[in-house]
Parts: sequence; structure tokens; C-alpha cells
Amino acid sequence: MSAYLTLEQRFRRIAALRDAQGLLNWDMSTMMPEGGAEARSEQLAAIEVTCHELMSDPAMADFFEEALEEAQGLGVWERANLREMRRRWQHETALEARLVEALTRAGNRCEMIWRRARADSDFAAVRPALEELLALVVEAASAKAAVFGCSRYDALLDEYEPGGSSATIDRIFGDLAKFLPDFLERVLTRQQAAPAPLPLAGPFPTDKQRALGRRLMEVVGFDFAHGRLDTSLHPFCGGVPDDVRITTRYDESDFAKSLMGVLHETGHAMYDRGLPEQWRGQPVGDACGMAIHESQSLLVEMQACRSPEFLRFMAPLAREAFGGSGPAWEADNLIRIYNRVRPGFIRVDADEVTYPAHVILRYRLETAMIDGDLAVGDLPGAWNDGMRELLGIVPPDDRLGCLQDIHWYDGAWGYFPTYTLGAMAAAQIFAAARAAEPEIPAAIGRGDFGPLMDWLRKNVHAHGSFYKTEDLIAHATGRPLDPGIFEAHLAARYLEA
Amino acid sequence: MSAYLTLEQRFRRIAALRDAQGLLNWDMSTMMPEGGAEARSEQLAAIEVTCHELMSDPAMADFFEEALEEAQGLGVWERANLREMRRRWQHETALEARLVEALTRAGNRCEMIWRRARADSDFAAVRPALEELLALVVEAASAKAAVFGCSRYDALLDEYEPGGSSATIDRIFGDLAKFLPDFLERVLTRQQAAPAPLPLAGPFPTDKQRALGRRLMEVVGFDFAHGRLDTSLHPFCGGVPDDVRITTRYDESDFAKSLMGVLHETGHAMYDRGLPEQWRGQPVGDACGMAIHESQSLLVEMQACRSPEFLRFMAPLAREAFGGSGPAWEADNLIRIYNRVRPGFIRVDADEVTYPAHVILRYRLETAMIDGDLAVGDLPGAWNDGMRELLGIVPPDDRLGCLQDIHWYDGAWGYFPTYTLGAMAAAQIFAAARAAEPEIPAAIGRGDFGPLMDWLRKNVHAHGSFYKTEDLIAHATGRPLDPGIFEAHLAARYLEA
Repeated sequence: MSAYLTLEQRFRRIAALRDAQGLLNWDMSTMMPEGGAEARSEQLAAIEVTCHELMSDPAMADFFEEALEEAQGLGVWERANLREMRRRWQHETALEARLVEALTRAGNRCEMIWRRARADSDFAAVRPALEELLALVVEAASAKAAVFGCSRYDALLDEYEPGGSSATIDRIFGDLAKFLPDFLERVLTRQQAAPAPLPLAGPFPTDKQRALGRRLMEVVGFDFAHGRLDTSLHPFCGGVPDDVRITTRYDESDFAKSLMGVLHETGHAMYDRGLPEQWRGQPVGDACGMAIHESQSLLVEMQACRSPEFLRFMAPLAREAFGGSGPAWEADNLIRIYNRVRPGFIRVDADEVTYPAHVILRYRLETAMIDGDLAVGDLPGAWNDGMRELLGIVPPDDRLGCLQDIHWYDGAWGYFPTYTLGAMAAAQIFAAARAAEPEIPAAIGRGDFGPLMDWLRKNVHAHGSFYKTEDLIAHATGRPLDPGIFEAHLAARYLEA
Repeated sequence: MSAYLTLEQRFRRIAALRDAQGLLNWDMSTMMPEGGAEARSEQLAAIEVTCHELMSDPAMADFFEEALEEAQGLGVWERANLREMRRRWQHETALEARLVEALTRAGNRCEMIWRRARADSDFAAVRPALEELLALVVEAASAKAAVFGCSRYDALLDEYEPGGSSATIDRIFGDLAKFLPDFLERVLTRQQAAPAPLPLAGPFPTDKQRALGRRLMEVVGFDFAHGRLDTSLHPFCGGVPDDVRITTRYDESDFAKSLMGVLHETGHAMYDRGLPEQWRGQPVGDACGMAIHESQSLLVEMQACRSPEFLRFMAPLAREAFGGSGPAWEADNLIRIYNRVRPGFIRVDADEVTYPAHVILRYRLETAMIDGDLAVGDLPGAWNDGMRELLGIVPPDDRLGCLQDIHWYDGAWGYFPTYTLGAMAAAQIFAAARAAEPEIPAAIGRGDFGPLMDWLRKNVHAHGSFYKTEDLIAHATGRPLDPGIFEAHLAARYLEA
């Protein structure tokens, strides 16, 4: 067997083991009784060790060397697959076992301390653990930077966003940071002049919310022969492309948030479902990265489902589901609810306009910390300065400030920018889809997502990881990621609609 | 590290991988959408290959050799663990890869043909596939017999019933086969003289059945912080000791069967929960074998929950659950329903009295086929002769005869006797528990399973696989498995009550 085929076989097995791990994690969040936690950790760890052994097998270096020599004889997809296999192998083997273990331990410890520190709004309590964790993250970033020949931050980013670079992000986020403060003021002024949204009166029973969620999932194109909707504390999209498991949580006093959450996860699910079938189980068949994944959820949520067209389609279904009537249940009010802009302290509660400010702040701070330009002890002050500059508000305490997100305290550095890169890509890809298929908005208004999904499957989903993110965006939309398109989308929705 | 500890570590990892496989199988039966089947097979196969590689690693033989030399210095549990580890390793490595593969393929093929043949009641259609499979099973049995130094049948039996022997089963089943025909006639005569059970009028909504099932599970002692109840086509008990997953199926026109099925699986679950905590993940900490496992489900179902004491406790709860009233809902009628004896063709529908006849028939036939004394072509005739002798009835076609069970057609030879060994052990263990704690029946009558479960945990569950089945029974009850105790139980319930 050729070295390339040996690698395919090895990666197919690793993929199946990772998929098994994914199902174990899904079950842990949705089904597992609390008493099962310890046994589940053992199961996950046993698979983890197995995958690591398969990757760090000394023979792998030879396989890659030989496969690279064979590369001329391979097809383009095989070559892209080899590139992705090698990237993963480099990530997996870049760090010494000692460092991997220290990172895991420090991450677990810091996260545990953070849980209490956040509740107490006590940054000082978690500061030493975060300093220790950051030192290890920097050590890991340095090791990976040496392997990949890039900056420390880019080496971290590459795990979530293959081929991403802070040079590009600096340019894009710089543009956005200039645009946002002024724009936000204009939106708020305009919004104040318009009628405030009327509240929807509950309660909204969970089973009715679930039924409406399932119905709208089917409208988007979700196939329940290939997936499920369940309940978990933190919504997510898991499973595998042919068995996609999305989750939500229900609040019986407010259906609007959970419902849009379901549509968001459905966007993730549609991407997974549309990945190239002939490349299942191979790295090149996987999703392209977190920015594109987030672009697909935000495309469905923000671009399609918060559009007036969709909300007009949805309004009668919501009335029917909950027996609602009167002006609060009219489409115009739903549009006001789902397009409300309100600067706040908490990222996960933020609207489409203010969300990028939260991300830009975190990106600036984490690059500075990784580069050694910001000490952990100065984080709370820098956070509050950034909030004042970007959103004009200052959190009253660190619980509503630099303690709110789990990411840093859990060791996930280099992840944040993908949220906003995804939002921008969503706007750009949706604009390209509409330009190619002008009937898309009207079809969405009839509850027909066929034209949109057909276009997305062909131009985005079916490419898997064949292209790097930037190239995929360029291939699908005809130009590199352009903040102007996202800004134009915001202007059209919040100043002109 | 000592060779013994190296083996412990290896087996702990294999156990965690097997547990992961178990959860994947549970999900496949309860949650998975049909479109997920192919990906799931890949996941299961990847774990299977990993476990097989860990077991067939050439270093294992050396570990065992060294560990056996160290055995003097080990504690009694460690020595028992070493014995069980070695037994599993011998099963796993006794067959050449070629034979394992041929068995898997032939089993899958035969099972597929059998599904259609059973529906068509066409034994001739499956006969060639069954002959091919049997030849491979005999080849495997011969290979294992050489390793274990026992007969072919005992080598097969050992996989389900470690240390079991057909010499013992012959003696026990011979006794029972003599007892049953006469006894059955007396029971039927007596039953005819008594009033027939009144039917319970439905429908019985699934959610009410589930709620009653969960309530009675808790009565038996099931802890929902360590397990779940779900729905599947074929009821089973899966999961791990700290997260036991049982399933049932619901028939809205009949709650009685599903409910007793739930209590049966709860018996399995209580056994798993009670296995020795300090030996989790080691072979000696696992269940002792299928006969003891079945004894614990049948002890809860047949001995405890079909007793008049429990049914008197349950009757008002059933009335309350379904809003039932009148004589059909009185305890005496429930007792008649749950203790009805009726010879029939189908094993899985059989009552406690006729069930052993079904098993004895299968045991006779499968030993004869493994020994080469019965050709596959003569199976239908031999089956019908046996049914006439043991139960006095002859099935009108092979669908209701030798085609009814999946076991042989799927390659599971040597499994059948464990059902009836389990039923007999259940009677003997329950009798010993009552002798030791005379308040057990009255406590069950109050819905208090504490005294019974305390005794079982101490005398059966907590021993895991420390003893072989025969020794465990002797240890718990003071004597080897004695068919007279099972026969006395039947006499007390069906002739004297």
C-alpha cells in the first residue's frame, strides 16, 4: 500500500474514534445521569490516549515523508487531504508529553478556580492560576510557532482557524473598530425614535417550543433521519455529518431566544450535513475551520432567519404554536424584537451590531497577553478601558467584565476572533448567494430554503477543507473577506429598513 | 512496574473502551436516527480493532508468564483478577484472525438470510448458511477446546458462563426434564378449576406506563442519579455500573408485560450497581457470568415481583396510575394474570413453568449439533419431537419452531442454558435470602426492598467475578445449584398458593 493510503487508513480510524468521543460528549451533555461522570471521563481518556498513540507513532514521520514524495501522482483532493493530515499531525506532535499534561492540569485547575471567582467577582482569586496557565500557553505557542514558522498567536489561531493570520485580522478588525462606535450611535438614535417592541406574554410550554423548533428546523432543511434536537445546559451542535445532534435549552417565559438558538445550531448542522460525502472520515472532508462553521450558523440565524422575509413567514406559525394574538404577535413586532440593538456587558447576550466590539476587545487583549505586552494583573483595567472605547460602557464589576467567558481560563486562546470573522463571512456569503440566485429572499419568505441551501451546499459545504478559509471565501464570493460587506449589511438592516 | 500492574493498566483501558462501545450500542438502540447507522458501525469497528490489538499484542504472553510467577505475592482478589484476565486473553487470542473474520462474515450473512426465512417460515432457505456457520463455530470451538483443555461445547459455554460444564448441566436439566411434564399437567388441571383472569381494559398511555415503571424501579432500589430508563425495540440493560441504562418497549393495549419487563431489567441493573466498587474496570470486578446475571433479573421479576406480596403492594399503584377500578384491578386478579401458565410455541412469551422446557430443548439440540450427532437438515424434525416430549405440543411451522430465536443464526452457541440456570439460581438465592432474613417477603409487601437488596449486595453482587458461578452460588446459599429448590418454588407457587 502507498504511504498516502496508509495515512488515509490511519486517519479514518482516528476519525471514527474522535466521532465516538463526540457521541460520548453529546450523551454527557444531554442524557447522562450525574453519577456517570467518572466512568465517562475514563472512557474519553482511553480514546484520547489511543488517538494520541496513533498520531505520535514514530512511523508517521516516515509515512509523511514518503507520501510527500508520492504527491505528484495524487489527485488534487488527495493532496489537500495530505496537507490537512500533516497539519493535524504537526499540532498533535509539536508539544512534549510533559507540556500537554501540564496544560491539561493547569487548565482544569484554573477553570475550577474561575467558576468560583466569577461567582464572587473576584479576579484576584484566579489571577495566579491564570498567570500559570498563560505561561504554559505561551510555551506551547512558541513550540508550535517553531514548527509552523509563524508567530505565537498565529500558531494558536491555526488550531481553530487553519491558515488564519493576525495580520489579516488586524486589518479587518481595525476597519470594523473604526466603523462601529459611530454606527452604533446612529442605530440607537434611530431606534429610540421608533416604537419599542411589545413584550410577548408567556408562559411558553417547553413541548410547544420544541415542536415549533423542530418544524422550523425542517423548514431550513434539517432531516430528522440524519439528526436530533435535544436539551442541554449550553446549546451546541455535535454528532457526525450523517447523524447531527443539535441542542438547545428552553425558558418557559421567553421562546424567542431558544428558537433563534435552534435555528443557529441548525445552520451548523446544515454545514456538517453538506460536507463532501466521498471524503467522510478524512481531514479534507471535515469542516474548514471555526470561522466558516460560525459563518454557516450565523448565515442561517442572522442573515436568513432575522430577516423581515423569514419573520413574516414565522409570525403565523408562532401565533399558532402558542395561541398568541394581538399586535405583539404581528410580524412587525417580531422584527423589532429580533433586531433590537442594546449595548451590554455580556458577549453571549449581545446583538449583531455590538457583538463584534466584544470580540475585538478580547482579540486585542489576548494578542497582547500572548505577546507579553499586557500582564494578567492589568487585564481588568485594560478590559474596562476597551469597553469604554468600543461600546461606551464600563462594567461595574469583573463578573460582568473580564471574568465572564470561560475561554481563557480553560486554555482556549486564539478562538475569539472566529466569532466575528464568521459573522462577516456570513454577510459576504449571503450577499453572493443572493446575487447569484435573486429569488432567495422571496423563497425564504415562503419558507423555502431550497435555493439558499442548494447554493451553499455547492459553493461552501461540499468543499470541506479543500480550500483554506480565505480561499474558500474568495472562491464562493469572488473576493477576499471584506468588512465593507458586513458593514453594508448592518447599515441596510439597522439604518435603512 | 510489576507485570501484574501492567496487565491491570492494560485491562483498565480495554474496559473503558468496551464501556464506550456499550454506550454507542445503547445510543444506537435508543436515540440514533436511522441515517447514523453507517458512521456508527465505523466507530464501533474502530474501538473493536483497538481492543483486539491491545489484547493480541505479543508482549501480553510475557506479561502473563511473569505475572503468574509473581502470583504468590498477590492478594486473593489480585489472583482472581489475574485468572479472569488470562481467561479473556485466551478467548481473544485462541482463534486465528482468518477464522474470526470468517465467523463474523458468516454470522452476519446467516442472520440476514434468517430474518427473511423466519418471516417466510422457510427453513430450507437458511439451511446452507446455517451449515456453513455451524462448521465455523465447530472449528472455533475445537481451537478453544485445545486451549482450555475441555470439550468443544464447554469451550463455547465458557464465554457466557465461565467455568460452566455440560456435565453439570446434563445432570441438572435431566432432573428438571423428568420433573416438568407431570408437574405441568397438575398445574394446568388446578388452574382450570380456578377462575380465569379478568382482562384489564386499556388503553394505557405510554407516559403513564413510564411513570409507573420509574416509580416501581425506585421501589426496587434503582437510583436515577446512576441510570436511566428509555425505550428500544428489544429491552436490555446496558451502560456501566455507575450509569446503568435499561430499556423497555410499550404496548398501549397491555401494560402488564412492559411493566414486568422493566422490573426484570431493574434486577440486572441492581446487580451491575452492586458490583465491587474498588474493582471497577478490572475483569474480577465484572459480573460473574450470564447465569448469575439472569438470576438477578429473575430474582427481582419472578421471585419478588410476581409474588403475591408485591402484587398486593402494586395493585393500588396500578389503579392510581391508569384510573382503573373494579374486580379486574384487584390484587387477586393481578396475581392470576402474572402467574398464568400456558404452554406455547414461543420461548420469549413463555411463563416460568414452561420456560425451562424451551431451554432444555435448545440445549439438547445445540450440544448434539456441536458434537456432530445432529445434522442441520434434521433440526426441524428434532425440534418438533422435542416439543412434543417436553410440552406436549407441536408447532405448525418452523417460524413457530426452530426459526424463532436469533441465537444460532447469529453465531451465539452455548448461550441458551444460562437462562434456566439463572432461573434456578434465582430460586435458590431467594430462598437463602429469606432463610437469612425472614422479614424479606413482608418488607417487599410494603414496597421495601432494602432487606433483600442489602443481602444480595453482600452475598452476591459485591463478589463480582471473584468466585466462579458454582462457587458463588455455594458461597451465597450454602450448597451447589440444586434443581430441587427451583422445583419446590414452582410447587409452592403453582400448586400450593
